[in-house]
Formats: sequence, C-alpha cells, structure tokens
Amino acid sequence: MLPELSVGQYSLVYNLFSFTIAAMLASFIFFVLGRQQVAAKYRGALVMSAIVVAVAGYHYFRIFENWSAAYSLQEGVYVASGVPFNDAYRYVDWLLTVPLLVAELVAVLALARARSISLTFRLALAAALMVVLGYPGEIAADTGTRALWGFIATLPFLYILWVLFRELGPAIGRQPGEAKVLVRNIRLLLFATWGFYPIVYLLPILGVSGAGALIAVQVGYAIADVLAKCGYGVMIYAIARAKTEAEENGGLVAETDRDGNRMAVAASSN
Amino acid sequence: MLPELSVGQYSLVYNLFSFTIAAMLASFIFFVLGRQQVAAKYRGALVMSAIVVAVAGYHYFRIFENWSAAYSLQEGVYVASGVPFNDAYRYVDWLLTVPLLVAELVAVLALARARSISLTFRLALAAALMVVLGYPGEIAADTGTRALWGFIATLPFLYILWVLFRELGPAIGRQPGEAKVLVRNIRLLLFATWGFYPIVYLLPILGVSGAGALIAVQVGYAIADVLAKCGYGVMIYAIARAKTEAEENGGLVAETDRDGNRMAVAASSN
Repeated sequence: MLPELSVGQYSLVYNLFSFTIAAMLASFIFFVLGRQQVAAKYRGALVMSAIVVAVAGYHYFRIFENWSAAYSLQEGVYVASGVPFNDAYRYVDWLLTVPLLVAELVAVLALARARSISLTFRLALAAALMVVLGYPGEIAADTGTRALWGFIATLPFLYILWVLFRELGPAIGRQPGEAKVLVRNIRLLLFATWGFYPIVYLLPILGVSGAGALIAVQVGYAIADVLAKCGYGVMIYAIARAKTEAEENGGLVAETDRDGNRMAVAASSN
Repeated sequence: MLPELSVGQYSLVYNLFSFTIAAMLASFIFFVLGRQQVAAKYRGALVMSAIVVAVAGYHYFRIFENWSAAYSLQEGVYVASGVPFNDAYRYVDWLLTVPLLVAELVAVLALARARSISLTFRLALAAALMVVLGYPGEIAADTGTRALWGFIATLPFLYILWVLFRELGPAIGRQPGEAKVLVRNIRLLLFATWGFYPIVYLLPILGVSGAGALIAVQVGYAIADVLAKCGYGVMIYAIARAKTEAEENGGLVAETDRDGNRMAVAASSN
C-alpha cells in the first residue's frame, strides 16, 4: 500500500516526472535534428539516442499519469486512491532502452564490422539480462528475495563494465584526439549513472521505508534516467561531432597528400 | 463474459500491451529516420514498415485502453467491469497492416516493375482475404464455426507461402550476397510468426478456456505482432542496407580505374 504523503512530497515527485518528460522531448528533438551535423556513419548512433528518449518519454508519461491516479488529496494530505502504482513501466522501459544505450556507444566508435556486431550483441544481451533479472527482486515482498535477485542482476553489469574498461580499452585509445577523452568520460558517466540504480534498488534493503523510501526511489530513478539517457546521448553526439571534424580535416590532407593510402588505412583501422 | 483474473495475470497483459506500444513507437522512429541510410529505390519499403508500426501502435493504444476499461479491481482480484473487450481492433489492424507486410517484401526485392505490381497485388489480396475470412471464426460462439472459418482462412495463407517459397525462389536466388541470406531468413520469420497466429486462434478449439486461454491469446498475439511487424521491419531495413552497400561498392569500383581496389576497401570499412 502506498504511504501517505504531504503536499510537498507528492508535488516533488509529480513535478520531477513532468520535468523528465520535458527533458526527453527536448533530447528527442536535438538528436533527430542534430543528425545532419555528423558524418553519415555516426547517424545510426544518434537515431538510437532518439529512440531511447522517445521510449523513455512514453514511459514517463504513463508513470506520471499513474502517479496522479494513485493518489487523491484528502484534507490537505495525499492518500492512496486504491489505484496501484505500476513499477513495471520502468522495467519495460529499461528492457528496451538499456541495450540501445550500449549499442549506440559501440556504433559511435565505428569499429570494424564483425567486431562491432559481436560487441553490440554481447553488451545488449548482458544489458537485457541485467534488467530482466532485477525485476523479480523489485516486485518481491521480502528483502531477502530482493537482495538475491539484485546480486544476480549485478553479474551481467560487471560483465558490461569488464568489456567497456578492459576489452574496449585499446580501441578507445585509438580514437582521434578529442574523441578519446570524450569516450573515456562517457564510460565514466555510464558507470556512475548505472551504478546509481543499484543504490536506489538497495534502499528498501537498507531499511529505508515508508514515504521517505518511496520519494527517494522515484527521485533517484528519474534523475538517473535523465543523466543516463539525455546526458549520455548528448555525449554520444559530442563524440560523433569530434570524430566528424577530425575526419573532415583528415580527408582534406588525404586529398592533397601523396601519401593518401597510408592516411586511408589509418582512418579505417580504428 | 471475461473471466476473473489475479493481479499478476491482469498486469502481465497490461504491461505487455504497454511494451508493444513502446516497441511500435521505437520501430516507427527507426524506420522513418533510417530511410537516409538506404538507396532511394528501397525507401518505399521503409515507408511501408513505418506505416505498419504506426497503425499497429494506434490499435495497441486502443486495445490497452480497452483492457483497462474492461476490468476493475475488487477486493484484490480483477473482475469484468461490464465493458466488452473488443476483438475487432486486431482484425482492423491486420486488414491494414498484413497486405503492407507482403508489399514491403516485394518492394525491397526491387524486381522488374510489371512483375512487382503483379506480385504485390496478388499477395496483398491474399493477405487481406486471410484476415477477413478469419474474423467470423474469431467472434463465433461455437468451436465448429471457428474451425470452419479458420480452415477457409488458411487457404490464402497457403497461397502466400506458395508464392514466397516457390514462385519467388529464383528471384531470391539472384539477390546480391548478404541480401540473399537475409531474404531467405525473413521468409522464414514470416512463416514462423504468421504460423503462430493460427495456433493462438486454435487454442479455444483445443479446449483451452477461461483465464488461461484469455491470457495465452493476448500474450501470443502481442508477441507475434512485435516479431512480425518490428522484427520483420528491421530485417527489411537490413536487406535494404545490404543491397545499398553492394550497389555502392559496385559503383565505386566501376568509377575508379587505377586505384579501384583501394577505393573499394575504403568504402567497405564504413
């Protein structure tokens, strides 16, 4: 049963959900229109960013409506209306968007085709597993079950981190100039924002309960979603821009230079 | 009359419908924005994919609203509210989308114009007939009527399979390299997903009834729709991409005289 909330508590979550919808809408427009500013081979990554924020925007619209329906104002406080608050929206959202988030990072690296397909497949599968395995714990009534599924879901997350920080290290080292720094930063953003979800997930286990826990979980997930989807997508755009500029300059050199063959090999061997 | 459902049963269908809406939205954005990545002659196929998922998304929105209205939560279980659950949404959806699904396959093959028109006409007509003839069985009260119309509707389905696997065999054999494999795979995807609908349709005849039958039919149709529309559309995109790349590489080699080999390598590494 949903705990009783003060007007301030209810409104904080209400307004944060509305903010999140607006942030997803703004990001969607930016990613769709920004495609023209990057080279053709990076546009796939921006399309994925656009899909991620559209799907998240849809789900936040549902969550917002659900929040409004789940509470009613009675004598100055918000009490549960009887309509259940549906946690599954978040998990359905993550199931669709989290694999796309890792796929867009691989896409913007522009690796060799076979390597790219293998990485995308493994990372997306691990990301989907992580979400699916977390859900039984989220809806569990007791903290033991929550802890168990939370632990199991952490394993694919560790695999993703291993791939990003170990296996992909050399490929990231070969990214051109500014893009190298940006890719290292986006990897840290992914680690920091994705690492935030398990902390929110753990709150009920840590004994945080009642109105405080409800508010903390909703605020935490919403902020993490804005950073991990909108912020992350903007960094993907910045990487695509930096690489586009580096290649445009490289292309000019190759056209005027006699040593064009070596330039072409250097550009395509990342 | 709709059977009583547990919270878990009701929520499974509810969340799956919401997932389907999100999947159709994601696919719509992908097909619209992905047109730029394929040659002009394949864009018609992507436009049809976009229309299919938009129409399906609209119908799933209606089905979702209908599902919510058809049930009300009373003392911990979901009971029929008295609002009927409208099966016609699915058939109206299929009547519009199923002919487009066969038409987009013909379009992406890029056959000679007269052949293309003849195939599209025959396959789309058979697809529409299949849907129209299935409907009287779907709304029939007795299993005999359901079985009869189900059998009649199978005839145009067999005709479609005959065209795809016999008549179109030689044309598919002439598709370039990777596209040939993809077209063979999409034909199997169509067979597997479309073959799934009659199985769901048969469940009431096979004696599956009550809550179990209702859940199985809704879950089955939703998963089949996601695979047959979103998954199928992504494969159409992959075929269009593979053919575009094959044609671009062919064009580059033909254009360059002395250094043709290097140009082809450079072009294929994007």
